[in-house]
Amino acid sequence: MTVTIQNVIDRLRLTIQPIENTVDDLEPGCPDTEVRGIATTFMATQQVIEQALSLGVNLLISHEAAYYSHRMTNGLLTGDQVYRNKQNLLQQSGIAIYRHHDYCHKAEPDPIMTGLLHSLKWESRVEEMLPTSAVLRLPEMRASEIAEYVKTQLSIPYVRIAGDPYMTCSRIGILVGYRGGGVNAIPFYREKSLDLIIAGEGPEWETPEYARDSAYQGVPKSLLVMGHAESEEPGMRYLAKRLQESYPELPVHFIPVNPVFKVV
Amino acid sequence: MTVTIQNVIDRLRLTIQPIENTVDDLEPGCPDTEVRGIATTFMATQQVIEQALSLGVNLLISHEAAYYSHRMTNGLLTGDQVYRNKQNLLQQSGIAIYRHHDYCHKAEPDPIMTGLLHSLKWESRVEEMLPTSAVLRLPEMRASEIAEYVKTQLSIPYVRIAGDPYMTCSRIGILVGYRGGGVNAIPFYREKSLDLIIAGEGPEWETPEYARDSAYQGVPKSLLVMGHAESEEPGMRYLAKRLQESYPELPVHFIPVNPVFKVV
Repeated sequence: MTVTIQNVIDRLRLTIQPIENTVDDLEPGCPDTEVRGIATTFMATQQVIEQALSLGVNLLISHEAAYYSHRMTNGLLTGDQVYRNKQNLLQQSGIAIYRHHDYCHKAEPDPIMTGLLHSLKWESRVEEMLPTSAVLRLPEMRASEIAEYVKTQLSIPYVRIAGDPYMTCSRIGILVGYRGGGVNAIPFYREKSLDLIIAGEGPEWETPEYARDSAYQGVPKSLLVMGHAESEEPGMRYLAKRLQESYPELPVHFIPVNPVFKVV
Repeated sequence: MTVTIQNVIDRLRLTIQPIENTVDDLEPGCPDTEVRGIATTFMATQQVIEQALSLGVNLLISHEAAYYSHRMTNGLLTGDQVYRNKQNLLQQSGIAIYRHHDYCHKAEPDPIMTGLLHSLKWESRVEEMLPTSAVLRLPEMRASEIAEYVKTQLSIPYVRIAGDPYMTCSRIGILVGYRGGGVNAIPFYREKSLDLIIAGEGPEWETPEYARDSAYQGVPKSLLVMGHAESEEPGMRYLAKRLQESYPELPVHFIPVNPVFKVV
């Protein structure tokens, strides 16, 4: 049976109420195109697009946008050679890119969170699964030990810790993506009596400085910042598995991105 | 002659047109208070406030806010024990905190940029000093060598590089604070033909991914992310020197903050 791009999008949006002003779009691409192969990824970088093509994929499902900002900003890429090269590759190859972001995070549970918990083997540790976060109880460990565990499980080269890295933690909160800012994290520590928050990314002088102040005042708290991609990529890997179950007749791949930063 | 807090604020705002809806305020503090000692800092953390008090300072000039967000967000700190402890210390001690942010960046040249260039010994390398950035020409060096130089000059333990760390760079752009996002950095690379941008902080999948795509396409670019505090602290150190010259009769200190993250 023929599967079109629209069929896949409909499946991804199944059970989700329509979201107004969503960033999720098919660009480039035509909804009626027959899907020959699917790949999921955190972000459609130049390298990821080339890999998808070499795998025979014609639908790339990317969590973040290919154009380096959450929404297309007027003029940002006008006359930009880097973006023009990327667009040329897309046009010549005919590959479609569907951004699966808002509808992804709106699912309950959010597959980005589920995928991360799965990769960390922490599904059974969840005490509360909330719309944009999860609360876990772990056997007591130092924040620095949890950091080592996270690095090992996800094969990531480094994480950053603020607050007290030596404190013993058992109540852990998780915030994926760019949810590590103070507006999300500070009430989260307080309302859920958390020892440690594991976050993707957030402004440096909000939550990290809050954790530092708390620790300095004698009430240890810690913050483990994994990296934005590192926190959301396991979810896109997990999504590829689910899509493979839905479309056993189609090749479905997950394409990882290398860490974008080198720490020196 | 008596110097009041208002006198110091007036001097800091001298030559700057009034800024509407500014985040710069005196909180806590009374403008008529006589200044006995001044300290400047990147951010009034709990530790910085205690150090200021131990130095006999009664006016602390902080670039960022003591309450972990750029603007006081309704409800964020209601009932928060960490913030309550900080406020108690402020009330009991009577120290005043003046936030010097918008008026600081609006000066031409911005003392935050001037201070950073001074600490990097790069004043003579400036080709263009723009309102929110600087363009430099350096003798050819690899991006990774520039990273080592920056770390050494500023005594910072790590920086992060995206794009091509081994490329030879001579045209360098600098963006302090949170100006490392794509909206600032992407046109900056393009319009000034930059090899490398040195930035404080910015979202992880904007500029870093742009630099990576460019390098992957064969046009090497690189991005060196110093850290928000690390990029702005030299400016607050520089400001302390200038205030000491303006008020030779008063003790003026600079209080550094330790790096908020530990990389593990």
